[in-house]
Amino acid sequence: MRYQLYYWPSIPGRGEFVRLALEQAGADYDDVARRGRSGIDALMREMANPRNPMLPFAPPYLKAGKRVIGQTANILLFLGARHALAPKDDAGRWWAHQLQLTIADFVGEIHDTHHPLGSSLYYEDQKREAKRYAAQFRAERIPKYFGYFERVLKKNPRGRRWMVGGRLTYVDLSLFQLVRGLEYAFPRAMASAERKYSQLYALAQTVEAQPRIAAYLASARRLPFNNDGIFRHYPELDAPRR
Amino acid sequence: MRYQLYYWPSIPGRGEFVRLALEQAGADYDDVARRGRSGIDALMREMANPRNPMLPFAPPYLKAGKRVIGQTANILLFLGARHALAPKDDAGRWWAHQLQLTIADFVGEIHDTHHPLGSSLYYEDQKREAKRYAAQFRAERIPKYFGYFERVLKKNPRGRRWMVGGRLTYVDLSLFQLVRGLEYAFPRAMASAERKYSQLYALAQTVEAQPRIAAYLASARRLPFNNDGIFRHYPELDAPRR
Repeated sequence: MRYQLYYWPSIPGRGEFVRLALEQAGADYDDVARRGRSGIDALMREMANPRNPMLPFAPPYLKAGKRVIGQTANILLFLGARHALAPKDDAGRWWAHQLQLTIADFVGEIHDTHHPLGSSLYYEDQKREAKRYAAQFRAERIPKYFGYFERVLKKNPRGRRWMVGGRLTYVDLSLFQLVRGLEYAFPRAMASAERKYSQLYALAQTVEAQPRIAAYLASARRLPFNNDGIFRHYPELDAPRR
Repeated sequence: MRYQLYYWPSIPGRGEFVRLALEQAGADYDDVARRGRSGIDALMREMANPRNPMLPFAPPYLKAGKRVIGQTANILLFLGARHALAPKDDAGRWWAHQLQLTIADFVGEIHDTHHPLGSSLYYEDQKREAKRYAAQFRAERIPKYFGYFERVLKKNPRGRRWMVGGRLTYVDLSLFQLVRGLEYAFPRAMASAERKYSQLYALAQTVEAQPRIAAYLASARRLPFNNDGIFRHYPELDAPRR
């Protein structure tokens, strides 16, 4: 089946977690909005499709035949089961999903580093607040989340290579994106992270070395991080220069 | 099976979405941390249980036999399947979960109305920022989310009585809590909401009238909203007096 992914065309954003799963699965998909103007129109139209009673609240959403599935973690739950990107047993599947929901919470906080007062104001109009938010984010939230993920990796009964069980899952793909995104956004704050979270960084490298992921990252399909997305590099939000 | 729910003992918070599901299911459960000091110790201990490789990131989490399940929406996915609080078919089950994840996003934003700069600062130390956040929240976010839920209700092919399909699901229970919580937090901003979102309000009343929910709400097990939880009533964050 050919999927249609609907997401904003110019940012990696939340859509990237879905793209990574589609790419690792070797799935056939259209990145609809990247067709240009007509693609963005299609994204807006489908979101309000009067024939679809299961309306998504926001992009990303995925069309799989007649089904339209919204919410990043929910899309991954769906793709994980279909493309062996999650354990087959219930306990493993729900554990992977639980981790993905914790990643989603973290992504929300990462977004708030540059928009603590909400998305309706420009960054420039909440820069001072963003600095205060980012300071506690760097000092407390990165260590809290990364410390947690590192602990989970170390406690995996099937070994430290993957987050869940003995095979790659969509959770690993998402954590790779988190690590690289935070390095992009907060290069100074993250300078010592590889030493502190060595298992997590090893995981990111293992993900990057997967043949399909490596090919994807080298392709034009991969959108670079930029300052319109979730991970933004504003030097004033990063740790102070030494 | 008797469940153990682990959540902070003095606030409804995110735990309340789980409590409502347990109560509607007529499930046997301990609200562990409400046993007093020893209960809070148990909550902290279980969260770092060295024998559990599937560590929760934060409360609420639920013990079901040997399994420990974290993340509110994930717990509801689990309980929904076990206690007929979600559709049986895959499409319906995932649609309910998608809606619950959208509720989770909204709950995060509700929390941010009083803590836009993060939870490590007191409200008093971010009151000015909270006022700015709350203004856009009242003007844009409540209409966006409530408008969406109202639309979904109206488009339910099985009728407007429930959000998903033809029976009560955990999504309905959570929306009841959202409506009442926002009324508590923003009484002036919500004064005209019942007129605008009449289906959603009718749903909240239908939920409240369910015999088990009615009994629960009248019991001491139901924690009242208060200013330590997610829904807080700070008059300065509400709409201006007329």
